[in-house]
Amino acid sequence: MKNKKAVVLLSGGLDSATCLAIARNDGFEIHAISFQYGQRHSYELDRAKLLAEQFGAASHQVVEINLGQFGGSALTDPSLEVPKSDDVTGIGDSIPITYVPARNTVFLSLALAYSETIASKDIFIGVNALDYSGYPDCRREYIDAFERMANLATKLGVEGNDAIKIHTPLVELTKAQIIQRGLSLGVDYALTLSCYDPGRGGIPCKHCDACLLRLKGFSENGIDDPSIV
Amino acid sequence: MKNKKAVVLLSGGLDSATCLAIARNDGFEIHAISFQYGQRHSYELDRAKLLAEQFGAASHQVVEINLGQFGGSALTDPSLEVPKSDDVTGIGDSIPITYVPARNTVFLSLALAYSETIASKDIFIGVNALDYSGYPDCRREYIDAFERMANLATKLGVEGNDAIKIHTPLVELTKAQIIQRGLSLGVDYALTLSCYDPGRGGIPCKHCDACLLRLKGFSENGIDDPSIV
Repeated sequence: MKNKKAVVLLSGGLDSATCLAIARNDGFEIHAISFQYGQRHSYELDRAKLLAEQFGAASHQVVEINLGQFGGSALTDPSLEVPKSDDVTGIGDSIPITYVPARNTVFLSLALAYSETIASKDIFIGVNALDYSGYPDCRREYIDAFERMANLATKLGVEGNDAIKIHTPLVELTKAQIIQRGLSLGVDYALTLSCYDPGRGGIPCKHCDACLLRLKGFSENGIDDPSIV
Repeated sequence: MKNKKAVVLLSGGLDSATCLAIARNDGFEIHAISFQYGQRHSYELDRAKLLAEQFGAASHQVVEINLGQFGGSALTDPSLEVPKSDDVTGIGDSIPITYVPARNTVFLSLALAYSETIASKDIFIGVNALDYSGYPDCRREYIDAFERMANLATKLGVEGNDAIKIHTPLVELTKAQIIQRGLSLGVDYALTLSCYDPGRGGIPCKHCDACLLRLKGFSENGIDDPSIV
């Protein structure tokens, strides 16, 4: 029997790479989707392409959508600074300036459009709500509401009796657990890039929330982050 | 007191023009948003610009997002034919090939991103579920689910106790009633373009679902469609 298709949101970061490996391990035919959304750098898109190839994706769409047009986030507005620290304490307690308004909603909507076009009912997104930056659109409560909306929005959902599922295999894992799971599935984390504000060539800054959470995850596993040389 | 801001989805068609007039009449400061989404023609965007100006919009964003990249709809795939008929019977009974997968979800998501950026809590969309083409994402049940999701997705929704409202003032009106309402608010329907497949210069085809529903609406009001010369 042919594998079922799944659309996997792939940023090129640690979480989405792990999510990709899980979707493939679950037996899905992978259709990756990435976004050029006006982020500060496009190194992560290069990583997304490498990861999609490595995991044998059947297709990989890169969608251009300029969220920077609206402004309002340090991730898309070069005039705003990405906060830097040496301390992981307090990350996730409030919604930071790196929050991009409605980003996951826009990304999931486009993933939904793509999945309906290729007759896929399964969408994977690597959100997690434990070791995270405090973005509201990373919680399962939000994903449940999106899933319900998606099943009312689409021909596939309406005619297929709530057929559409949004999979969030990482949502209740710590960063350390995510890394363990990914390593067991062959993810090469040297290829992944999580940093909000990397230097030239995609060198992680080691001080933004994404870098700090990632370093903590590797540290708790007693290993070095292979993306930091 | 300064007027509250509202984001209004504006395609340049009859419904969205009426919705724009209603939002302004309700006292909102108008921030229009339109989409270059890979549709067959861009005449409607020219009309959207004229309408936004006429109703004194404080801003008008035109967002480029190529839904044609995914394929799957006669509205974005030039190799698929837009169905034509002389008969309005049967329109809306099933989901037609002009359905664009997840279109309103993508559009509302981008409107949500924009509204959060400008600190607006009100979004207007001119969907209607009586004289319509049968698209699932035009029903209030769907809009309710989107609204719920939006309030979980965003900083504005989470911190503001379900502050975000998606207004659908046309959802329970017939096309004839929509036209009556618009005329009473000064909408110049000669400026609006609803046709899925217009000829050069934006001349309506008179035979697609959108043209047939619109012609019926004017006919029920005992007047000619001023966009058809």
